[in-house]
Amino acid sequence: MPGYSLSKDEYTSRLRRIEGQVRGLQRLIDEDTYCIDVLTQISSVTKALQSVGMGLLDEHIRHCVQEAAAESEEAGNAKIDEATAAIARLLRS
Amino acid sequence: MPGYSLSKDEYTSRLRRIEGQVRGLQRLIDEDTYCIDVLTQISSVTKALQSVGMGLLDEHIRHCVQEAAAESEEAGNAKIDEATAAIARLLRS
Amino acid sequence: MPGYSLSKDEYTSRLRRIEGQVRGLQRLIDEDTYCIDVLTQISSVTKALQSVGMGLLDEHIRHCVQEAAAESEEAGNAKIDEATAAIARLLRS
Amino acid sequence: MPGYSLSKDEYTSRLRRIEGQVRGLQRLIDEDTYCIDVLTQISSVTKALQSVGMGLLDEHIRHCVQEAAAESEEAGNAKIDEATAAIARLLRS
Repeated sequence: MPGYSLSKDEYTSRLRRIEGQVRGLQRLIDEDTYCIDVLTQISSVTKALQSVGMGLLDEHIRHCVQEAAAESEEAGNAKIDEATAAIARLLRS
Repeated sequence: MPGYSLSKDEYTSRLRRIEGQVRGLQRLIDEDTYCIDVLTQISSVTKALQSVGMGLLDEHIRHCVQEAAAESEEAGNAKIDEATAAIARLLRS
Repeated sequence: MPGYSLSKDEYTSRLRRIEGQVRGLQRLIDEDTYCIDVLTQISSVTKALQSVGMGLLDEHIRHCVQEAAAESEEAGNAKIDEATAAIARLLRS
Repeated sequence: MPGYSLSKDEYTSRLRRIEGQVRGLQRLIDEDTYCIDVLTQISSVTKALQSVGMGLLDEHIRHCVQEAAAESEEAGNAKIDEATAAIARLLRS
């Protein structure tokens, strides 16, 4: 399959890995790890989360928008409004 | 205390909350929640993580850089190089 | 019209304003303005540019993707691949 | 010189190049260039601006913060507060 879309199992396993990384961050703080090393790990967790977000966004455009657009232009436009608002939120986060 | 610096307990409790949010994301995926709602939640987790990162960065500049600079200019500059590299990584993540 | 789409004239006038802001940045540097004030201005120019980018992205999804999807699923998917790659680039910039 | 710090001339020449890129964006819009190609160019201008911002931030930490810290802890902390606020603005832009 092209693009970013993932299966439900892939989302779950990625999020489970991210959960483990966040638990790892707590351990790093607990062990007084050097702050720059914790920061590097935070950047990596953020990237992993954004990548899950990109997958969901791709899915939204590929499926929700297209299905709604096949129904009516108005329905399609409503889904596109949601997509651009979500992209703007991702850009600001 | 001014700025973003947090106590060890505050970092731990924030990260524990983020861990819970990531578990919540898995539940959202599992229950086939509408992708835009999952995305909104991902933006919020990303923001929470970045805020922890900002706290660590502030701490690094406030303590590590200043202590190293009190030792020698060379040591201070080395810590500043690490700080700017970490900021650049945060900006790209 | 809902969303971020702008007319050609609006894009041009926004970009002309951004060009003026970048010239203003050169003046700030030339006059040895305090670096934090220059940085605040850079954040504002970056936001203005990202907002133009969001407009174009909205346009791409609203027009190019929908037109291509009306032609064939393959054509629509190709345009969506381009959109998600562009979003990923915006997120990393 | 280590890190991201640039000379005044380098800032000026980088900003002049960015100004030219923004004028180029106006031409792309004027010639109805394909929106994805305009977006790619916007990502590249944004990156160039952020890189100028990183230079200024590095300079602020390397010079303003250190000089102020040599004066008094209070003065140093005030400059660090400004730095972390500026980083937070860059992250949100």
